[in-house]
This record gives sequence, structure tokens and C-alpha cells, in this order.
Amino acid sequence: MTAAARGPAPAEAETFALWTARRCEQVERALEALLPALAEPPARLHEAMRYATLGGGKRVRPLLVYAAGELVGAPDAALDAAACAVECIHAYSLVHDDLPCMDNDVLRRGRPTVHVAYGEATAMLVGDALQALAFDAVARTHAHGVPAASVVAMTALLARAAGSLGMAGGQAIDLDAVGRRLPAQALQDMHQRKTGALLAAAIGLGAACGLVAPADRAWLDRYGAAIGLAFQVVDDILDVVGDAAALGKTAGKDADDGKPTYVSTLGLDASRRLADDLLGEARAAVAALGPGARRLGDIAELIVTRHS
Amino acid sequence: MTAAARGPAPAEAETFALWTARRCEQVERALEALLPALAEPPARLHEAMRYATLGGGKRVRPLLVYAAGELVGAPDAALDAAACAVECIHAYSLVHDDLPCMDNDVLRRGRPTVHVAYGEATAMLVGDALQALAFDAVARTHAHGVPAASVVAMTALLARAAGSLGMAGGQAIDLDAVGRRLPAQALQDMHQRKTGALLAAAIGLGAACGLVAPADRAWLDRYGAAIGLAFQVVDDILDVVGDAAALGKTAGKDADDGKPTYVSTLGLDASRRLADDLLGEARAAVAALGPGARRLGDIAELIVTRHS
Repeated sequence: MTAAARGPAPAEAETFALWTARRCEQVERALEALLPALAEPPARLHEAMRYATLGGGKRVRPLLVYAAGELVGAPDAALDAAACAVECIHAYSLVHDDLPCMDNDVLRRGRPTVHVAYGEATAMLVGDALQALAFDAVARTHAHGVPAASVVAMTALLARAAGSLGMAGGQAIDLDAVGRRLPAQALQDMHQRKTGALLAAAIGLGAACGLVAPADRAWLDRYGAAIGLAFQVVDDILDVVGDAAALGKTAGKDADDGKPTYVSTLGLDASRRLADDLLGEARAAVAALGPGARRLGDIAELIVTRHS
Repeated sequence: MTAAARGPAPAEAETFALWTARRCEQVERALEALLPALAEPPARLHEAMRYATLGGGKRVRPLLVYAAGELVGAPDAALDAAACAVECIHAYSLVHDDLPCMDNDVLRRGRPTVHVAYGEATAMLVGDALQALAFDAVARTHAHGVPAASVVAMTALLARAAGSLGMAGGQAIDLDAVGRRLPAQALQDMHQRKTGALLAAAIGLGAACGLVAPADRAWLDRYGAAIGLAFQVVDDILDVVGDAAALGKTAGKDADDGKPTYVSTLGLDASRRLADDLLGEARAAVAALGPGARRLGDIAELIVTRHS
């Protein structure tokens, strides 16, 4: 099956901005429905889980789930559940990272962080419960038409992306690196785990909700590796050149905390060139994947050209 | 199929003590193999994960997995993975519960708690990574012969037992209850979530690794509900009458912390009678399940008659 024959490209009439708005609304509704209601005890925990998850964020990971799902013609309801799963993992990681024993951040998306608003113990439980909810959401894709064997593979993929060889492991390396100057390769390894693994998992989960042509699998992996790194390089650039109002957090904080960044390791100009090179790699993968990968291409541009 | 015809009862020659020792060794080996090696980076995180998980604990949840698995003739390798899954969730919950923002415990199983030994940030990441590893372990049961649809059901079961409507939710209720006197029903609800949900999930996971006769499902649920509550009632009794050396933690700590307990709510004698009544319920369920449920019966006796 050729790329062009695989499924309809998104309607030409819908701009990327409209697509993004539609998909963001969609994941917001799905998260609303997945999260236990406010009235459900323990009410304070559920309120804090909703505070941590709803009404904010760029939703980059859910957008990747939908974009990869469109490439493979996956059913929308399954993609909603998969998008919720990665966003719950992402939201839990932010809540735990913001805690005093980690980054000690008081502001997130322009609002008090969860532990400031609800206390440290509740913030820890919010993260713990959101991680469990993520795997519940993966299991729910089965009821929306994803074959059970694919759901098992998705469970393993998300668990490894979130665990000690993925995101949590990246955090641990980050902790150990404070105040040190990391070689470029070690920095890349840290970010691949800390940020890249979950971004790649978002693509993998979306694709697993449909049928991936074997030839496309390698291109999806290359796309995921490129945008995963690009995301972090741009984050580090914005930490230096961005302003707090646009970022919703304190600019320069990572550098001030003595954390190694791409900018501190490579310098600003080389970091910008690296981001451009990675965008080129992502574009090449998108071209190979064909017109169904259009939204993956749009997201790659968004990641590299964003200002917050 | 009658209970007697369903599969061989455990060999008469093996005492419960020998069975327990054998199964505990088995889950220890399985955890050893599941946990990333010490040399695998991030080494400090992996060392702390092993410290939190290996070489200690009563392994009640893994024993329940094996006992329920024996009832349904489940393959041993699948039970190993399922036993690891519940034990990883249990171990993560202890690490997080011990943190200063929660119970602030410095001693666990007679050793310094994880945050005392490795620092708070690492302890939080240990818990986060162990929860992810638990779901990875559930997914691995598929490679050991469990049908994919059963694995999806197991994923959902464990996620709900661990999440805000289960264990994490019970912790949140516990937090809010400090210094208050809870009605017996609210206390029971709290413990059902905090401890009972994961014990019941252990039974459910073991049973899902094989084929459960429909008539047995309700008896397994009744057994699980009874021993789940009995476990906590006996915990509360031991907190009052036990000694620190046998418990491996500070006796009387829960009462001193102003936490409502069965003993503080019902009194010591009524708590003992409740434990006996629950043991009776568990025995009735075991009798209905037949000789294949022999080890479930043994575990119920162990839970109620233990001294630590």
C-alpha cells in the first residue's frame, strides 16, 4: 500500500491552527470524562488532579497521538484514550518535578503549582494517581476497537517510556548533573530519556491505535527521535532568550539552578543550528511518510518555531 | 467443572511454611530479573529501586497471586510477572508513604527508609519508576501465555486498585483523617481503598493468569474483601500490642500520629472479634472454592494470626 493510498489526508480546508484547536478541545473533553468527578471522594484529591491536568498546557503529546493516529486511520475514540494516557503521564511528571525536593517551582502555566495550592502530600498523591490513571486509559483503548495485543504493546511502551529507563531515569540523571558540565552526548542521553521517550511514546501510541505499514515504522521512529531532541533544544534556547510571561515560568531558571543545558554546552548559535538540523530530519521523515503525515509535519514546525 | 476436578491440589507433602519459602524465593528471583541491573544507568536510581524492593517484606501480595493462580492452574512464569507487578506497586507505595511530607518514617523492615538512605528526590523517583515497572510486568504476562484480552483486564484492574479510587485515594482519605475520629464505616472505606484494593487485585491478577470458573469469581471476591479488611484490623491491633523489633517499625506510631485505627474506633476486644469474624468469612469462601484453594486458606490464617 502506498502512502498516498493509505487514507485521506486531512481536509485541505482545515488550517493547522484550527486542527490544533479542535484536537485540544477534544483531549480536554476526554480528560474531563476520564478524571473522576469532583464530587467523587476523595474530593480534594480529585479536585487537585483536575487542577493539574485540565485547562492548560500546549498538549504537544496529545497532538502527536492524534497526528500519528491520522496517519494510520485509527478510530478517534481510541486516540482520545491514548492522548489522555500520555497527557496524564506528562501532567504527573510536572507535579512531581515541581515539588520542593525536586525543582521547587511555585509557578506553572502562570498558576501556583499543585503543591503550593494543595500541599506537598496531596501533590505527591496527585502524581501517583495520575500515573495509574494513564495505564487505565491505555486499557480503555481496547473498548474502542484497538486489538488486545496492540493494547498490551502500548502498555509496555508507555511503561518503559515513563520508567527508570525513560522519563523517571532522565530525571534521576538530571538530579545528579546539577552543577556539572555534561558532555554533549551525556546531555543528549539525559534529554532523550527525560523528554524524548514520552514524545516518542505519544507517536507510538497513536500509531498503535491503527495499522502501521512496516516501512513506515522506521520513519516514525526517526521523526520521533528528531522532534524529541528538538523539543528540548528549543526549551533550553527559550530558557535563555524567552520571557517569563510567554513561558508561564521563570526564564533563566534552569541555567540559574546550575543545570546543564544545550545552550550552556553548545552555545546559543550552535543550539539554534542543531534545532534547524533536527527540523530537517523530521521534515525528511514526514516526506517519506506521505500526505497522511501532514499534521506530524506541522507539529515539527510548531515545536521548533514556538516562542513559549 | 467441579472444584475438585479443576486441577491438582498442592502436593500434600509440602507444608505451608515450605510453600511460602519457595514462593518467596521465586518472587525474589523474578524481581531480581525484572529490576534493571545495578550497572544500568542511572545506577543510583536502580540501586535505590532494588533497595526498596528486594530482600525484605512478608510478600503477602505475591503469595496471594500464586495461591489464586494455583486455584486456576495458571502458568508459573505468568504468575511470577503478576506477583512482581503487585509487589512493585506495594513497594512504591511504602517508599512514598515514608517520605517526610507523608508519614515521615525513618525505619522500614528494620532498615533506613529509602529517602533516609538515598535522599527525598531519589525516593520520589524510585516510587514513580516502580509504578511504571509494575505495568511493564503486567504486560509481560502475555509473553508467558496469558491471553492479550486478559492482560488488558489485568492492566485496568491494577490501575484502578492503585489509583485515586483505590490505594492512592485511600492515602488521601487517611491524610484528611489525621486527628479526627472516623465512624466505623468511613474507616472501613478508607482501608478498603488503602490496603484492601491492592490485596484484592493480587487475587484478581493471579486468577486472571488462568481460567476462573464463573461460580468461583464471587467466592474469590468475598475471600478478597474479607482478608483485605482483616489485614488492616490486625495491623491496627499489632500497632497497639506488637513490639518494634518484631514489626521492624515503631509500635504505636499510628495511634501517636493521631490516625484513626480500628482499635481507636472499636476498642481492642471488638477489633479482635472483627478479625475472627473476617477469618470465618474467608474460610467459608475457601471451603466453597474447594481443595485447589488450600493456599488461599493458609494465607488467611497467616494474616489473622501473624505477630508482625
